[in-house]
Amino acid sequence: MNSPARKPLLAVTQGDVAGVGPETIVHAWADPELRAVADIVVVGHPEVMRGAARLFGDCVRVIEVESPEQARELSGEAGTPALPCLPCGEDVIVDVPPGQIDPRAGAAAYAAVVRAAGLALDGQVDGVTTAPLSKAALWRAGHRYPGHTELLAHLCGVDSFAMMLYLPPGDAVRGPAGLGVVHVTLHAALRTVADSINTEAIVDKCRLANRAMLNLGAATPRIGVCALNPHAGEEGLFGDEEQRIIAPAVAAARSEGWNVSGPLPADTLMAAGRDGTYDAIVAMYHDQGHIALKLLSMHRAVNITLGLPIVRTSAAHGTAFDLAWQGRADWGGMAAALRVAAQLAKRAAGPDHDEHDELPLA
Amino acid sequence: MNSPARKPLLAVTQGDVAGVGPETIVHAWADPELRAVADIVVVGHPEVMRGAARLFGDCVRVIEVESPEQARELSGEAGTPALPCLPCGEDVIVDVPPGQIDPRAGAAAYAAVVRAAGLALDGQVDGVTTAPLSKAALWRAGHRYPGHTELLAHLCGVDSFAMMLYLPPGDAVRGPAGLGVVHVTLHAALRTVADSINTEAIVDKCRLANRAMLNLGAATPRIGVCALNPHAGEEGLFGDEEQRIIAPAVAAARSEGWNVSGPLPADTLMAAGRDGTYDAIVAMYHDQGHIALKLLSMHRAVNITLGLPIVRTSAAHGTAFDLAWQGRADWGGMAAALRVAAQLAKRAAGPDHDEHDELPLA
Repeated sequence: MNSPARKPLLAVTQGDVAGVGPETIVHAWADPELRAVADIVVVGHPEVMRGAARLFGDCVRVIEVESPEQARELSGEAGTPALPCLPCGEDVIVDVPPGQIDPRAGAAAYAAVVRAAGLALDGQVDGVTTAPLSKAALWRAGHRYPGHTELLAHLCGVDSFAMMLYLPPGDAVRGPAGLGVVHVTLHAALRTVADSINTEAIVDKCRLANRAMLNLGAATPRIGVCALNPHAGEEGLFGDEEQRIIAPAVAAARSEGWNVSGPLPADTLMAAGRDGTYDAIVAMYHDQGHIALKLLSMHRAVNITLGLPIVRTSAAHGTAFDLAWQGRADWGGMAAALRVAAQLAKRAAGPDHDEHDELPLA
Repeated sequence: MNSPARKPLLAVTQGDVAGVGPETIVHAWADPELRAVADIVVVGHPEVMRGAARLFGDCVRVIEVESPEQARELSGEAGTPALPCLPCGEDVIVDVPPGQIDPRAGAAAYAAVVRAAGLALDGQVDGVTTAPLSKAALWRAGHRYPGHTELLAHLCGVDSFAMMLYLPPGDAVRGPAGLGVVHVTLHAALRTVADSINTEAIVDKCRLANRAMLNLGAATPRIGVCALNPHAGEEGLFGDEEQRIIAPAVAAARSEGWNVSGPLPADTLMAAGRDGTYDAIVAMYHDQGHIALKLLSMHRAVNITLGLPIVRTSAAHGTAFDLAWQGRADWGGMAAALRVAAQLAKRAAGPDHDEHDELPLA
């Protein structure tokens, strides 16, 4: 009790080595404010990370470690900051050219995610932040997952999960705990959306959103649920999914004691979320959430996987092959993802970790 | 040639008298900067307008006129600004209570639109700006139009028309001519959207958007066309409307010589539009456009009806019954709608009106 709080230790996957992942990790780690809130261990190839450090005048020292625990011991050393790296992936990835889809990079990215998830499930690290991977490279390496989220759910043996896009409190959003957006459907053709949403799935997303926002500091998360149709269907004039599917889900969620409102027209709800009237929004489909989030903050959105037994975040952007290895990539998303993972990991560790933490994991 | 430019004369409908229309007209007209760019004549009930003026300490003098021409003669008089009003609607509307759906208000709102459109078609005014009406009140009065846009298209005998939501250049958007968004489908259930869009309709919206943005000052309008599916379908992985319907429309539009790009993922396209990379965006459905526009500027968006033989604008907001007749309604939308109508009316009047106008009506 009241022991000095140990910083959370995060495993950071290198992502696709042809993309912007390595350089965003290096650039973010050069920031002393970030190093003050977390320790990290990169899961990847030390030579790749050293190449990324050279882009920024060797602003960090990449040090190969044999275990996550060893990474902690490097924390706080004087001089150029240490960037511990736990080797993972074949040496051939050093030869992968920047900005191209390469199955060798896909195989290495996959191996790093598997390793990092294993470390978190074993309790050797307190959370995982992933650098972007290329789905095309992943598939060419024979791993046919739609993305990180589904791969991690599989590795964790979880069926009920969701991606939350989260904007931390600040300029972009006015709510005290930021704004999280959870999608009921995601990478699906628009014509399939109306038949894909169902009451149970919406209640499930409300549950995940409520838990996540508690962990992100909202005392009683205020959750707004989007309508599917314009003007929420205008009383059945154009679409009845509001009455048939969404309103019953909101009623069921409220009966669980959660502060859930809706269905509300998505256009005004997104603006109300920005203004701090809601802590989280449940969107019915990809563009409903993403149009708002990309307008509010293209580079600061954090992707949080909800429903896993481990903490996992990433930046919301992709590999950005066109920018990779030029030292020009925006590293703010990676920094935000690491900060949010540290915040969630502290919360997960419970009151011993921080005496001010009063809320249990829901 | 080079005669001193006469200000455009705009007919302004009173809208639903139970809503915020009358007070937003009065409040906007109290602004001398607006009076410097347009003359107006309100089409409505003088007593209703006088009631609205009383909310603001009689900041304008409501003067009953018999013709639009008479309104011009009041322009520029010294003292409290004159607000000319051409009587329209039964006296019973003076008794309509604020904030309620009332068929008498619907009948009067309908009559004002018919009168104002007639004045514009006759050339007695240079354009029309409408105050919001209640669709429910309109329908209860027996006029079953989805809204102003369809009613005006009917009155003008036009089949090819569209609603553009337009943000003038300024804080919200960075393009030099502002940002216009045109929708291919609008008040339709989401499940019907994929089967409602077609190549011809998209080309038609590109044509209308191109013409409108020329009139709003873009030299060569840069038009971005939204994809229907997330990630533009990711090469057919989730949805093929991009290849089947939208890409052929973009190709056809380009062959007309218009600067049209797409289909582009809607989430990044909206942010690019905000940043000034595009002058206009063609959205496939209501929320795709509205989520972005309401986030960018809830109160300054102007609704422009494209394809009519007359100029017509309105504020993008509705009757706001909950706020009406308290003097608290935001009048910025009405002011913006009047400014944009004046700009379009000057352009429509051609080079004699303004020697700097070089672009023809497309």
